[in-house]
Amino acid sequence: MSNKRRVCVVITARPSYSRIKTALAAIQAHPNLELLLVVAASALLDRYGHAVRYIEDDGFPIAARVYMVLEGENPTAMAKTTGLGLLELATVFDNLKPAVVVTVADRYETLATAVAAAYMNIPLAHVQGGEVTGSIDEKVRHAVTKLADLHLVASAKAAARVIRMGEDPATVHLTGCPSIDLAAEILADPTLNFDPFVRYGGVGQVPDLAHGYLVVMQHPVTTEYELARRQVIETLYAVADCGLPVLWFWPNVDAGSDGTSGAIRTFREQAQPTHIHFFKNMAPTDFLRLLYNSRCLVGNSSVGIRECAFLGVPVVNIGTRQAGRDRAANVLDVDYERTAIQAAIRQHLAAPRPASDPLYGDGGAGARIAAVLATAPLRIEKRLAY
Amino acid sequence: MSNKRRVCVVITARPSYSRIKTALAAIQAHPNLELLLVVAASALLDRYGHAVRYIEDDGFPIAARVYMVLEGENPTAMAKTTGLGLLELATVFDNLKPAVVVTVADRYETLATAVAAAYMNIPLAHVQGGEVTGSIDEKVRHAVTKLADLHLVASAKAAARVIRMGEDPATVHLTGCPSIDLAAEILADPTLNFDPFVRYGGVGQVPDLAHGYLVVMQHPVTTEYELARRQVIETLYAVADCGLPVLWFWPNVDAGSDGTSGAIRTFREQAQPTHIHFFKNMAPTDFLRLLYNSRCLVGNSSVGIRECAFLGVPVVNIGTRQAGRDRAANVLDVDYERTAIQAAIRQHLAAPRPASDPLYGDGGAGARIAAVLATAPLRIEKRLAY
Amino acid sequence: MSNKRRVCVVITARPSYSRIKTALAAIQAHPNLELLLVVAASALLDRYGHAVRYIEDDGFPIAARVYMVLEGENPTAMAKTTGLGLLELATVFDNLKPAVVVTVADRYETLATAVAAAYMNIPLAHVQGGEVTGSIDEKVRHAVTKLADLHLVASAKAAARVIRMGEDPATVHLTGCPSIDLAAEILADPTLNFDPFVRYGGVGQVPDLAHGYLVVMQHPVTTEYELARRQVIETLYAVADCGLPVLWFWPNVDAGSDGTSGAIRTFREQAQPTHIHFFKNMAPTDFLRLLYNSRCLVGNSSVGIRECAFLGVPVVNIGTRQAGRDRAANVLDVDYERTAIQAAIRQHLAAPRPASDPLYGDGGAGARIAAVLATAPLRIEKRLAY
Amino acid sequence: MSNKRRVCVVITARPSYSRIKTALAAIQAHPNLELLLVVAASALLDRYGHAVRYIEDDGFPIAARVYMVLEGENPTAMAKTTGLGLLELATVFDNLKPAVVVTVADRYETLATAVAAAYMNIPLAHVQGGEVTGSIDEKVRHAVTKLADLHLVASAKAAARVIRMGEDPATVHLTGCPSIDLAAEILADPTLNFDPFVRYGGVGQVPDLAHGYLVVMQHPVTTEYELARRQVIETLYAVADCGLPVLWFWPNVDAGSDGTSGAIRTFREQAQPTHIHFFKNMAPTDFLRLLYNSRCLVGNSSVGIRECAFLGVPVVNIGTRQAGRDRAANVLDVDYERTAIQAAIRQHLAAPRPASDPLYGDGGAGARIAAVLATAPLRIEKRLAY
Repeated sequence: MSNKRRVCVVITARPSYSRIKTALAAIQAHPNLELLLVVAASALLDRYGHAVRYIEDDGFPIAARVYMVLEGENPTAMAKTTGLGLLELATVFDNLKPAVVVTVADRYETLATAVAAAYMNIPLAHVQGGEVTGSIDEKVRHAVTKLADLHLVASAKAAARVIRMGEDPATVHLTGCPSIDLAAEILADPTLNFDPFVRYGGVGQVPDLAHGYLVVMQHPVTTEYELARRQVIETLYAVADCGLPVLWFWPNVDAGSDGTSGAIRTFREQAQPTHIHFFKNMAPTDFLRLLYNSRCLVGNSSVGIRECAFLGVPVVNIGTRQAGRDRAANVLDVDYERTAIQAAIRQHLAAPRPASDPLYGDGGAGARIAAVLATAPLRIEKRLAY
Repeated sequence: MSNKRRVCVVITARPSYSRIKTALAAIQAHPNLELLLVVAASALLDRYGHAVRYIEDDGFPIAARVYMVLEGENPTAMAKTTGLGLLELATVFDNLKPAVVVTVADRYETLATAVAAAYMNIPLAHVQGGEVTGSIDEKVRHAVTKLADLHLVASAKAAARVIRMGEDPATVHLTGCPSIDLAAEILADPTLNFDPFVRYGGVGQVPDLAHGYLVVMQHPVTTEYELARRQVIETLYAVADCGLPVLWFWPNVDAGSDGTSGAIRTFREQAQPTHIHFFKNMAPTDFLRLLYNSRCLVGNSSVGIRECAFLGVPVVNIGTRQAGRDRAANVLDVDYERTAIQAAIRQHLAAPRPASDPLYGDGGAGARIAAVLATAPLRIEKRLAY
Repeated sequence: MSNKRRVCVVITARPSYSRIKTALAAIQAHPNLELLLVVAASALLDRYGHAVRYIEDDGFPIAARVYMVLEGENPTAMAKTTGLGLLELATVFDNLKPAVVVTVADRYETLATAVAAAYMNIPLAHVQGGEVTGSIDEKVRHAVTKLADLHLVASAKAAARVIRMGEDPATVHLTGCPSIDLAAEILADPTLNFDPFVRYGGVGQVPDLAHGYLVVMQHPVTTEYELARRQVIETLYAVADCGLPVLWFWPNVDAGSDGTSGAIRTFREQAQPTHIHFFKNMAPTDFLRLLYNSRCLVGNSSVGIRECAFLGVPVVNIGTRQAGRDRAANVLDVDYERTAIQAAIRQHLAAPRPASDPLYGDGGAGARIAAVLATAPLRIEKRLAY
Repeated sequence: MSNKRRVCVVITARPSYSRIKTALAAIQAHPNLELLLVVAASALLDRYGHAVRYIEDDGFPIAARVYMVLEGENPTAMAKTTGLGLLELATVFDNLKPAVVVTVADRYETLATAVAAAYMNIPLAHVQGGEVTGSIDEKVRHAVTKLADLHLVASAKAAARVIRMGEDPATVHLTGCPSIDLAAEILADPTLNFDPFVRYGGVGQVPDLAHGYLVVMQHPVTTEYELARRQVIETLYAVADCGLPVLWFWPNVDAGSDGTSGAIRTFREQAQPTHIHFFKNMAPTDFLRLLYNSRCLVGNSSVGIRECAFLGVPVVNIGTRQAGRDRAANVLDVDYERTAIQAAIRQHLAAPRPASDPLYGDGGAGARIAAVLATAPLRIEKRLAY
């Protein structure tokens, strides 16, 4: 075994990959670090974007794969998925023997990574703590913060919150979010240089994008999952009448996504929309490029709050999912209500493009994260600062 | 199904039972509450005191039992035990359909209860948050706080810390610790009214307790588990020479307890101590009565910090396990070092009995907890207060 | 607890419910038996027919529900699903304390039921052992036989095979298959007394059934799962040209069903079939009634071999999935080849309706199973008879 | 990846290691095979002999370790241990991608290996099928046979039974048992060339072995586990009076071993035996050498039936645990009854040493197993032969 610090990063979903990709590359390139990449949960599943394929295509070797998503897409399945992940990640860590484990953001199953590392006395680094949102993510994120030994946060406000929660300031590092690194690459050359229909297929008619288009990405909100169906219907009707082509992206695995999917299927059968095209997944950089060139993003994805701040893309953010998250001037917040959604879209279309805002990073997060992982003291003992 | 609030309490270890027992009785007696008691983990195992027998003897009906402790007594087993518990408690909650789940204190496996409830959108009440200690318990306790919706804390300082961590003050209730309720019952009539050797057997010679005795309870410290053996040996030699009979209680299930057990076994074979008697377990109230009548408690149990404050029992607290916990005047802190331990014992034996201190409760915690569970709004949405 | 024998039946899938339903009713009605019904795995999932709804509608109380199906629909997920089921069913049995456990047929996850019961020293009754088929079911079925203490077989040949495998003849009971009991009820009054499109929706145009129709039910064959897509395409093209309306039923949860589903979706988009209607699920008795009134069943479902023998429905059985199973004169076997499938359909349409054959039962299986469970000695010790 | 067949062998307990060790060496040495060794369950645990240490000392590289033994030592824990193993071995196989999986003998947890391989379409080779015994092993062994694709049996009778159970004779290979290979090595030079007390410690006084000694190894019988305590007491009193030193070996992990252990501890405290020495574990070859040089083996270990047949060691076999197993002339069977045990010991001591019998192998099993694994067709489709 070499003297490099063995850094085990666990990726459990497609969006998490975007939020860590440049850090993976920087870890891999760092002379004092060895990357041990674990791909698990919905990142392995075709239904949820099959992130593992992008990871392989990007050339990252995979140390272990763990299937752990339980069927049901209900809260019981979320809990059991996390339990299963905890069981198995413990075995993976026991066999890989990492010096530090990295967990990304706040999806429910990331708590499996965090608990396994904490209980096995492996220092835990948490990327993207200290932010504020709604729903179960809020609980997960701060619970992970209390289990983590190293905090790699995206914004100054996040850093302040982590410290206020009682963490040792010496363990809190303001790195920015690696997802902004990807956005920065796009911003350097933002031309839409591919045909999304040719490259990604999808279902629905093929609209002409020449005169602008909207992008929609709306996830079910876990703690209100019976409402997911009704919520997405408002968005469907709102964008159906907006006069621009719509590129709609399928939601993540989460309790309630069956509600969302069902609503979309029913809408397609009934309304027979001619200018909405549905995609299941897209390479992250292609997605950002598509976003940059869109007139507006509609939905409740955190991409609207984070990457779109840096890209300067107008966003109509629906409902409570991103409530509490710090936002730049590109975001209009509306309720699950079709006329309100339409009004906000119209307001954005009538206004000039927002400026780029470095709220969540400046493009150098990946390198900073690798540097912290290579040099920070790795300790597992901590105590509330007050 | 009646209109009573269904309160599911999960007990995973012998000491947790003492810390919730009077609340169980108060919940059971409350006209608007229905008790659903789940007994799991080491609370079911003979090796760790078989708490389930005391629970049954006390007349609490058990809604479900969950075996979940993985063999190994190492950190990997701790993580996997928790994963297994999470998997299975999700099924238990799915079948029992509680209105609120109660988790007790900060043992590692309590995180299984907390995550299952949080992910299943069941309001989570946490008893004994906001305290400060060392080791993995520290991480577990605060992570549970961030998952919990209702905080039933033992002391004013704990309440302040929970709020400072960002919890809504309206959800923080200062109830005191139910373990002090048991201590208050003993204090009302503290005579040693039973013979511990007759009632509990144990191993080792039977010393005469008439002229005073020491009690020892020393747990392995999880994150230093290879040291567990060496640490306990210091205590063994310290008390072997103290001139008083010693009643020694076997440690909990935890990574490292094999180290502790092994050290004790080796010491017995080698030193052939004549005045140390070893017990595996004891009914909580008998244990408190025995403590009250002892000259001093030696070790690192939280009983020394909490119940003994109220009982006014002198305590020699060894090492880091209770570091950070608020303490009354009855505690002398020492390092894992036999002469320091002996000196502290001698200092206590020469001093008058400490006064009773209500630092962790006044005897009414169980009733207060039941009252909060019956009347507090049960919500699952929360957000960092800053 | 009463003196009735507590009979725990575990149902894990929609087809298993049909194969045990009349036995459930007979157990429930039996004065010396108490029914403890556990519903688990795909029987709880909407995607796979949501059998639990039919079970509830039929008035059977459910003692426990266990979500256990892992996402992935690949062989790894099948193994893990079974492991999860074993973990959790052990807890369920530990809490329910049945006198005997009943497992149905040969789906992969039934081995979880069988192993849990066998290891927990609970006598295991196996319904439908001793049959011969292809694929993983073959291994599962005979492995369950070797774990079972009581064999409730459907046919005389099955009884002979179970004994030849070394089981004690005293433990082998020829009861017939309860699914035939349902068929016998239909045969007593077989009129198609409901409109399947009104009652069950489904997708696709609504054909006129007045002049006859085909039914298709084709499952992926697990051990060849990459081929599933290609196999189902042959059937799709074969029935598309048959000149009769087609009622197509969606497959079970199994490795490869994504292949099947994908093929069907692609075919619908490309071929735009006008006389194929797709159903996701149907109450078992409605399904049998629909089958009885069809001109032919096409596919690889065991319903074609078993219930259709009794109902006298012509069957075109495709591929190896039912290979080895004893069959009556109603079955024509063909390969995965569209012209062969078409030829066999034509041959059936030109011939008279086959006679009812009691090969798999005479309609009294449920009552016989209850009688055996009430009276047979319940032993767990056994030894190979040679 | 090389063109070698990747052979994954899963070892779950100390005795299983002895039964596969020479095959491991032969697989490792074979030019067309690559060994992937998985060590799991009690083979990783100190309490049960820590087989993993011997495996490492013997120089076999370990591809993965899986902690999976649930505490409780009751039947529920056995079932859950197996479920946990199934969950995790599926992930291990998914990551290692073996061409064939080898499972050894009939311990309960071996079914986890067998089911994982069978469900994942990996050909399964079973070592030591077709034998007949009592208790749960009987069910496990034959269930594994029905899941296995390749049968590597120890005796001609076992081969005949596997075929009679319906397996294809072309898949049944009479290799002998690798444990006999170890015995054959000892037989080549059987001198007792080490001092067991110096090398292995153990507890109890150190008797003089110069004038002969007995060896005892008695496991709890799973399905009668409440009786385990009473059964072992008979043996303890029987050997206490035999006039020879006794070397007693601690039992395996199994439901009931707490009963056995407890009985031994109580006996030691009460009877204070002076010529019984207790060992926890011993390297397999040292154990065989010790056996060869003993006057008699007492207990219910299969070593008495198998290795001792070849070594020509007299055996007093107690109770039903080995019932049904083919035996040579070296075995006297008795009931759990101290006078019967003593009488059989006396009968053996008065008789000449039994001849070596190749009933379970001739010393070449390991090489034959490797040869079969390298050359046999690897298929996963099978069907009952009748």
